[in-house]
Amino acid sequence: MQSLLDLCRRIDAGDLTPQAALRMSHEAIAASDEDIRAFVHVDATARAGAVGPLRGIAVGVKDIIDTADMPTEMGSPIYAGWRPKADAPIVRALTRAGATPVGKTATTPFAYIDPAPTRNPRHPGHTPGGSSSGSAAAVAAGMTPLAIGTQTGGSVIRPASFCGVAAIKPSFRLLPTVGVKCFSWTLDTAGLFAATVPDLAYALAALTGRDDLRTASRPPAPRIGLVTQDFAGPPDPDGGEALESAIRSAERSGATVRALALPAVIASAFSAHGPLQDFEARQALAWEYETHRDLLPPLLQRLLDEASTIDALAYDEARRAARGARNALGDVFAEVDVLLTFSAPGAAPATLASTGDSRFNRLWTLLGVPCVNVPGLANGAGLPVGVQVIAAFGRDAKALAAASFLAEAIAAPL
Amino acid sequence: MQSLLDLCRRIDAGDLTPQAALRMSHEAIAASDEDIRAFVHVDATARAGAVGPLRGIAVGVKDIIDTADMPTEMGSPIYAGWRPKADAPIVRALTRAGATPVGKTATTPFAYIDPAPTRNPRHPGHTPGGSSSGSAAAVAAGMTPLAIGTQTGGSVIRPASFCGVAAIKPSFRLLPTVGVKCFSWTLDTAGLFAATVPDLAYALAALTGRDDLRTASRPPAPRIGLVTQDFAGPPDPDGGEALESAIRSAERSGATVRALALPAVIASAFSAHGPLQDFEARQALAWEYETHRDLLPPLLQRLLDEASTIDALAYDEARRAARGARNALGDVFAEVDVLLTFSAPGAAPATLASTGDSRFNRLWTLLGVPCVNVPGLANGAGLPVGVQVIAAFGRDAKALAAASFLAEAIAAPL
Repeated sequence: MQSLLDLCRRIDAGDLTPQAALRMSHEAIAASDEDIRAFVHVDATARAGAVGPLRGIAVGVKDIIDTADMPTEMGSPIYAGWRPKADAPIVRALTRAGATPVGKTATTPFAYIDPAPTRNPRHPGHTPGGSSSGSAAAVAAGMTPLAIGTQTGGSVIRPASFCGVAAIKPSFRLLPTVGVKCFSWTLDTAGLFAATVPDLAYALAALTGRDDLRTASRPPAPRIGLVTQDFAGPPDPDGGEALESAIRSAERSGATVRALALPAVIASAFSAHGPLQDFEARQALAWEYETHRDLLPPLLQRLLDEASTIDALAYDEARRAARGARNALGDVFAEVDVLLTFSAPGAAPATLASTGDSRFNRLWTLLGVPCVNVPGLANGAGLPVGVQVIAAFGRDAKALAAASFLAEAIAAPL
Repeated sequence: MQSLLDLCRRIDAGDLTPQAALRMSHEAIAASDEDIRAFVHVDATARAGAVGPLRGIAVGVKDIIDTADMPTEMGSPIYAGWRPKADAPIVRALTRAGATPVGKTATTPFAYIDPAPTRNPRHPGHTPGGSSSGSAAAVAAGMTPLAIGTQTGGSVIRPASFCGVAAIKPSFRLLPTVGVKCFSWTLDTAGLFAATVPDLAYALAALTGRDDLRTASRPPAPRIGLVTQDFAGPPDPDGGEALESAIRSAERSGATVRALALPAVIASAFSAHGPLQDFEARQALAWEYETHRDLLPPLLQRLLDEASTIDALAYDEARRAARGARNALGDVFAEVDVLLTFSAPGAAPATLASTGDSRFNRLWTLLGVPCVNVPGLANGAGLPVGVQVIAAFGRDAKALAAASFLAEAIAAPL
């Protein structure tokens, strides 16, 4: 993989020009993407910015995010060749920071669960996860040091775990979702993929102007609350082993880890995600559903068919459950800095017909809290299995610092 | 004005065909709009729906709302001739209910405060208000029985007050804002204009599938809390007189009215609206600002220039203030059903160079609570002056019922 911070340091030191850094990404895309299929469009003419903390950094942008200079096709034939008028604000934030969007990354259709054509760079027969399939794969395959994705259920953290890269789903709306195709306005959250947690922190600080997000070179040992999310069912054996291994590494490096039982009001909000998402998706995709239903892929078609049965009262009830859980979550963080849990049930399933399961991600998307996938662990077959670090709303810096600590702990020699 | 409910009753009874009802709107537009300039685009070929509670109802749609079959120009030359790919969900909700979007209504550029070309149908030298200038004027001039607008500061309630029509800014996101050009994602709220409060209630119920929103034919007398918003400065004399008159009418009809002092945490949130809106607008309009600044109108240009000085910490502080005020508002509604306050400082100013002042609207937009403009009162010169009824979040039915009661009380003979 390309490390964003490593590239930035070499550019800052004058050892690498921004344009040369960008060229490395173009060459990597040319070498790898025929197999991986992370990109649905590449702008081979894209040039590096001359100034800004991210100058020379090539970025893959999920293809549900509007770009004025590249097509935006939503993973759907309905939008074949579609050119939005304006760049989404997050795209402008990239270019303001000096970064260069070099292409649009493959998304599942409308960011739901019907698979995209992307292969997992760690093993071509396994799913890269979804819906930000191309963004995770582009970083994992070393094609770009940074990629933008979105998460409504588990579409950032899950593919990052499956592909073995770092990723953050920040606090709700820390990154703007204007100009991002909507699936659920209460849930849709933009996020970042990079090789390492410090890479993520540096990029997120550059995009938001929040310097406190950058991680220290030696992050302090966090107080960790372990959450197994029993309401979501058990993990796969390798998912459980990865979490155990992460705990041992964290403790060995000085962190405290204690098991936490989430209050019932939080656990029960898990089941609010579905009706909330589906009621909004039915509205958000009304034009597509009502005028082009036959061009929608089968799983999305079925979801929208069934969503018509959710009435407004059930939706209101789901919103109230989410609100109650958000309020209750403050107490959970009274005695721990972060939570630690599964990023996904286990390693990427050995199929391209499914994008995997978001059940360990959905509650946290609903709660709007920052989640980081920490890479570095693998199962017996050598496939990556991530673990997830979660902080309170608005405490993205804490999530990144703890995730950085954990990544170092995992990488430390025994 | 055309009463939506009156048209619907005649259509239901078979006395009027949906197509004949629609033709009345087309004829009214042809007769009046050259002077009023409420519409920037009219689809003269639009046909009535055959089924649905709003069949035969012509609707003006604010031109920041995406339509697949009509241009969407944002009131700006930057978007001249622009055709979005998809209808915004609110447009699909209209057509699902049988209504017919017959044209796009004039908006101030990007829904900020630089005026649109629209005239006030009550007096051509006075502003119709903004930013939903055309939507308010289209209903006021009897061109359509229903129009859609949006409010980020006071862009629904203020023009309704100036033009003498009923309007509702519902609870935040009761109507979806997907496909609506974003100015501030925390504040932008879609709303409705119609001739009467029961018209609004019927239309909002039809668009949302929430039958409880329809008002009873004899709404019960509400307990009213009077709020003068001293933190926003004094009203004009005619604004004060209208509120006094509304109070007397309400009491005469059996309502109780008591003066309420808002808790300090709510009053102080008034000043959070500005930094919150401006910080988000700078991001939401980043592409327009960075690539077409010279084509932005002067007031918007200046706002976005100055918004660059708002840092993330000031924004976070404004969000916290808004959240604190939203939580505190529950107690205010413990002993009253609704609040009553000014819709605007007074009647429409005698100018076309300003859209008037949103200072009595901004706090309620920030709080996300339903607000209804009640028409029926006028100043000494015969210009309309509305009053504003406000309910707790999600209590749109209560706001509409109380507003309907008040409108009847105002119209009742002494």
